[in-house]
Amino acid sequence: MVLPLRLIPRLAAAARSPRAPRSISPRARSVPALTMAAAYSTGSGAGRRLLFRQLFEKESSTYTYLLADVADPDKPAVLIDPVDRTVDRDLNLIKELGLKLVYAMNTHVHADHVTGTGLIKTKVPGVKSVISRASGAKSDHFVDHGDKLQFGNLFLEVRATPGHTAGCVTYITGDADGQPSPRMAFTGDALIIRACGRTDFQGGSSDLLYQSVHSQIFTLPKDTLLYPAHDYKGFTVSTVEEEVAYNGRLTKDKETFKTIMDNLNLPYPKMIDVAVPANLVCGIQDPPPKI
Amino acid sequence: MVLPLRLIPRLAAAARSPRAPRSISPRARSVPALTMAAAYSTGSGAGRRLLFRQLFEKESSTYTYLLADVADPDKPAVLIDPVDRTVDRDLNLIKELGLKLVYAMNTHVHADHVTGTGLIKTKVPGVKSVISRASGAKSDHFVDHGDKLQFGNLFLEVRATPGHTAGCVTYITGDADGQPSPRMAFTGDALIIRACGRTDFQGGSSDLLYQSVHSQIFTLPKDTLLYPAHDYKGFTVSTVEEEVAYNGRLTKDKETFKTIMDNLNLPYPKMIDVAVPANLVCGIQDPPPKI
Repeated sequence: MVLPLRLIPRLAAAARSPRAPRSISPRARSVPALTMAAAYSTGSGAGRRLLFRQLFEKESSTYTYLLADVADPDKPAVLIDPVDRTVDRDLNLIKELGLKLVYAMNTHVHADHVTGTGLIKTKVPGVKSVISRASGAKSDHFVDHGDKLQFGNLFLEVRATPGHTAGCVTYITGDADGQPSPRMAFTGDALIIRACGRTDFQGGSSDLLYQSVHSQIFTLPKDTLLYPAHDYKGFTVSTVEEEVAYNGRLTKDKETFKTIMDNLNLPYPKMIDVAVPANLVCGIQDPPPKI
Repeated sequence: MVLPLRLIPRLAAAARSPRAPRSISPRARSVPALTMAAAYSTGSGAGRRLLFRQLFEKESSTYTYLLADVADPDKPAVLIDPVDRTVDRDLNLIKELGLKLVYAMNTHVHADHVTGTGLIKTKVPGVKSVISRASGAKSDHFVDHGDKLQFGNLFLEVRATPGHTAGCVTYITGDADGQPSPRMAFTGDALIIRACGRTDFQGGSSDLLYQSVHSQIFTLPKDTLLYPAHDYKGFTVSTVEEEVAYNGRLTKDKETFKTIMDNLNLPYPKMIDVAVPANLVCGIQDPPPKI
């Protein structure tokens, strides 16, 4: 059996498209980008402009998130928390979907894997790395609490959620007409499903983390979808309503929470001495100057 | 900081709810089920009645899917391709979300992990196991091509997609008003993202698999979301449009496809001798009769 006939004109049209795919990765295949990338919408009506993909890096159990405004002619896209090992996978997907990556963002300076933002910048000229000013890391663009990051007609709101590290932020889809509904919050390690990130390194503070989650995440609409930077049990998403009811740590009172966090007895993170220095400079040193 | 005041009445109301949570798992925590489980909608309007969760089992890289009609007072739910090792996780989530599990379904007789359906039946009386009649497996309910499986006001359509095994089916959300939009197809191993299941065991046939995917999956609307039983690279979802353009095997002509499949040189599946006999009886033998 060959390709159904009705599909052939569309593919032929894609091949004739004047918008040639941009060269992103030397390993990307030379196939035409989709003319109309299918939107993975989480909302109704205007929410259909959002293309959303959750991607997993198995070794560090890290989630990377791809968001794009596919109703905008340029299909501008952002990547949240890319991992160095999976950069080629991510860039190839972006190329296949016909997206234009504009921001490679981190929720914080990770201690368990090396960020992909520096590597992405070497492969896709023009992409800007993004992290919070409070992180102390090097970046093209710094964000502070209350900032908005625009991609096409969509935007992410930045909320400071320190406590796992001093510079942690949560990126949240916009609260406005035409933005995805329900909202989606990318919480980094401030809140992971039914748990939270450790608070014993990198300016961590259990007191501050408790305050961050209760004031900045638990106050979001209860149907807000929560997407963490990691999951170790195979969950992919939660909601504010679920975590307010069932989070194993953050549903406790603050003193109980602090006692829990003080007694986790976790081992020293095996990647921290490599990852943190690297992640302070986007995961990669600037190329040495040519002499 | 304590729980925001506005949340307390809701939780108190949940605790007073006359609909006591059902006892599903002895390990489940005694917390009130959410009064209004947040819907993870993939569609607009009526699609909001669907709660959807993708769950991952890391050892076999298996995806389990939870779907429920949360607009129905009973919140009836189905699980597709549960794994024995993660049954407690899945049942605890179902309990927390206040769902009533009605079907524990398999897309086929798996060779790489033991299904959780038998174990689920021992823990949740009343749940029915589901598999295709063509699978040759034991089950409470058998499905054939064209059947519909109803849960609340939502339903799944069954399409026979043999080739990986002789009894493979794809479950697809309904094509009708009030059903999720875009449609979602749970393809098992017939189609995995950018690839497909092997065809050299269990009545497999590359000829038949090619025909199944091209006639039953690639003919779905191009924005149909494709959810496979496995992913080994960290992808979570694809679309018909993407696979028609970029699937590394199924975009070829049939003869090339058959040559690819004949030359995969894959090792003998390490779990097959345990998994297949177990999965032919829902992953578990009937309890021995009491003497």
